[in-house]
Amino acid sequence: MSEEKNFTLAELAEYSNSKVVGNGNAVVNNLASIQKSNPNSITFLTNLKYKSFLKTTKAIAIVVDEDFEIEEGLNYLKSDNPYAVFAKLSSLFKKPSYDLDNHIIHPSAVISSSSKIGNNVTIGANVVIGPGCIVEDDVVIKSNSSLVQDVYIGKNSIIHNNSILGSDGFGYALSKDGYIKIEQLGGLIIKSNVEIGAGCTIDRGALDDTEIHDGVKLDNQVHIAHNVILGANSAIAACCAIAGSTTIGMNLQMGGLSGILGHLSICDNVSVGAHTLITKNIKKSGNYIGIMPAQNQKDWAKSSIFIKNRG
Amino acid sequence: MSEEKNFTLAELAEYSNSKVVGNGNAVVNNLASIQKSNPNSITFLTNLKYKSFLKTTKAIAIVVDEDFEIEEGLNYLKSDNPYAVFAKLSSLFKKPSYDLDNHIIHPSAVISSSSKIGNNVTIGANVVIGPGCIVEDDVVIKSNSSLVQDVYIGKNSIIHNNSILGSDGFGYALSKDGYIKIEQLGGLIIKSNVEIGAGCTIDRGALDDTEIHDGVKLDNQVHIAHNVILGANSAIAACCAIAGSTTIGMNLQMGGLSGILGHLSICDNVSVGAHTLITKNIKKSGNYIGIMPAQNQKDWAKSSIFIKNRG
Amino acid sequence: MSEEKNFTLAELAEYSNSKVVGNGNAVVNNLASIQKSNPNSITFLTNLKYKSFLKTTKAIAIVVDEDFEIEEGLNYLKSDNPYAVFAKLSSLFKKPSYDLDNHIIHPSAVISSSSKIGNNVTIGANVVIGPGCIVEDDVVIKSNSSLVQDVYIGKNSIIHNNSILGSDGFGYALSKDGYIKIEQLGGLIIKSNVEIGAGCTIDRGALDDTEIHDGVKLDNQVHIAHNVILGANSAIAACCAIAGSTTIGMNLQMGGLSGILGHLSICDNVSVGAHTLITKNIKKSGNYIGIMPAQNQKDWAKSSIFIKNRG
Repeated sequence: MSEEKNFTLAELAEYSNSKVVGNGNAVVNNLASIQKSNPNSITFLTNLKYKSFLKTTKAIAIVVDEDFEIEEGLNYLKSDNPYAVFAKLSSLFKKPSYDLDNHIIHPSAVISSSSKIGNNVTIGANVVIGPGCIVEDDVVIKSNSSLVQDVYIGKNSIIHNNSILGSDGFGYALSKDGYIKIEQLGGLIIKSNVEIGAGCTIDRGALDDTEIHDGVKLDNQVHIAHNVILGANSAIAACCAIAGSTTIGMNLQMGGLSGILGHLSICDNVSVGAHTLITKNIKKSGNYIGIMPAQNQKDWAKSSIFIKNRG
Repeated sequence: MSEEKNFTLAELAEYSNSKVVGNGNAVVNNLASIQKSNPNSITFLTNLKYKSFLKTTKAIAIVVDEDFEIEEGLNYLKSDNPYAVFAKLSSLFKKPSYDLDNHIIHPSAVISSSSKIGNNVTIGANVVIGPGCIVEDDVVIKSNSSLVQDVYIGKNSIIHNNSILGSDGFGYALSKDGYIKIEQLGGLIIKSNVEIGAGCTIDRGALDDTEIHDGVKLDNQVHIAHNVILGANSAIAACCAIAGSTTIGMNLQMGGLSGILGHLSICDNVSVGAHTLITKNIKKSGNYIGIMPAQNQKDWAKSSIFIKNRG
Repeated sequence: MSEEKNFTLAELAEYSNSKVVGNGNAVVNNLASIQKSNPNSITFLTNLKYKSFLKTTKAIAIVVDEDFEIEEGLNYLKSDNPYAVFAKLSSLFKKPSYDLDNHIIHPSAVISSSSKIGNNVTIGANVVIGPGCIVEDDVVIKSNSSLVQDVYIGKNSIIHNNSILGSDGFGYALSKDGYIKIEQLGGLIIKSNVEIGAGCTIDRGALDDTEIHDGVKLDNQVHIAHNVILGANSAIAACCAIAGSTTIGMNLQMGGLSGILGHLSICDNVSVGAHTLITKNIKKSGNYIGIMPAQNQKDWAKSSIFIKNRG
């Protein structure tokens, strides 16, 4: 469907800051997995679990670590960070995702007159941008997403489909007459180079702002509550939730389906396992896990009783 | 951006049913956190953890509990429910969220001719309302949400963005030829003063209706399966799920990422901790928790073996 | 609202491959629960927990198992799979869900010129179909869903509202300069007779394709990461997540809020309990559970200490 792109191995080495071992004139026109490569593929080997495929791969070239012991007859790109080389090469073979009549701002998008949109911003179909929003240059907002109100998005950030940014935080005061809604007067600040997955929700603040710092990456269906401050370069896998007013340092990593309770303080460089709940402040970097081990049904039933009876 | 609103402290006291201590003529034009107040802010102090900020706050007035020992030189609103006072004040300073060309029903909304829409209903962009729906007066339905089919929404309820109400329940009969879909013939009844967060899904019933009673509040990304009956004034935090045909009393509270299995009966006034699964009927009100404690990786690995070996 | 449909019991027996016991001329015009039946209802009894309602039900006929001991004065449809009979009957009483001006492809849908749409395909309002997609015959795609890019959907599949198919997988290489995005060059293949719930996300592959095989059923808010292969006739309840590159056999069943880590291999016929995380390969079919038992708060606190102290 897409026009073919041809590169020599030497060109790829220069682009990705790696070193050719073998024939720099070899022609590459696609990036593929080691099992599904064809004679014009470049592939990569960073997980030695897949090393046996080296014997059968049809790829013309392979991205490997500097220390990799090469075999004769194959061409290589060597690097001290072969996975980063792979990532850089992936951008060369990317297909255009937004050919929808080549509208940079799709005509179906609804944008409040009190919001400001920067240069070279892509806004997909059915996107709704409410009042008081600022979208900086080079941002991509994919279809059916909403910036509800008072949302700032920094340069070069990507918002995937059906995400809702700046929605009302979940706040009520209990009174004799039932719940009284606390109107959410704060905003949401998303800084630069942030990527928000599909189907995410990030609430704006109650009084102060919710903040997502530079370089944060969220997978799909992540929820961030009001007044969370999420430190730079944090990466959160799918279906996690962070409750309100929690402050998190840089480089948080969370496995999928995990949570962090509200009003906590989490230091830099914390890693949270999948399906784990953090209930206390964390002051020391490291890996924190709280997975109940899965077992076959009979054994689990016994363990469950053991936990309840405490012995 | 929004026009300035000015109130005297005496006016705020009257509006919020609280009592001025200090200068009732003090002029307030914003509601702010205690740390970020300016000389025209009113703020509040309900969590004594923040008491130290009293010395440095620039706020002209502070909402506090009746028993709070005041300090000279500051103005106060006193109440036996200061958090409710704060909630009431928040509505005074709310910015309009729907300035999108001032359409009450946005022209991009698609509404079935067999559905009925009440008075003073706000319907956002790209909302889809299918057949057999009734939306009562003063309801707000935000952008990109769908009422799929046979959905009733009572007065004064709010549906946030990208929520799907009245979708098909998950039902199949297993036969020799694979799964046979059970068409969902019931409806979804959402009563009055309900608030449904962004990205939620609530299925309509298989035969009878799914029911969400008065005053229920759902945070974002909550899932309610077909034929659940959810009692009045229940409040459910983000990313929870309730499985089919479970009947729940009044005032359920659920922390985030929690679940309740199907075909259960839960009594009034139950509180479920975050990241907890309820697997049995609950007949006694109280707090129920099933969190596997998070630990550093090494300690968790030992606890995991301890659980599996049961000693 | 919908026109009335009348059937004799004999007609229903023929349609559903079951056997009349009683009056085959009895007229049925609705399918209802045993509690809410009226004198023209057919109902069913597969769960003996509801047997006491037999005495009070107003239904004219009841679907039961072949071995059921009938009582005089009621009419029955008998079958060795009464639940499948119920499912078949449900399709007779289904109300049309898409009367939205009778557009088969709603005019607000945005479809890339490089995508191909088969015959008798229903596409709802605000659906976005990006480049390189193929939608086979008899597919239904409900409102506000997106097929982002390079998505194949096989015959007779149903995609519910606000689901995002073919979104970017979550992949980055860490370098000295922060994360480098790995562009996702693979596609997403959804085979035939698949049903995807509302608010789901399924990512396309990084290099090879993500694959959802024939007859898979996903409930709402399920997340499937890039390069997962999900075997035929798997059924996954709401709010589950499967991480990247995991390969799963046929007939997986997952309870709600569960997860499976990435790069695993799961054999055929595995059942995973609700709120359970699978962290290892599974080579033996069976039921796997990892639920931390819920208790009242005091008992849980003791169990939590017991787990952490390991005795």
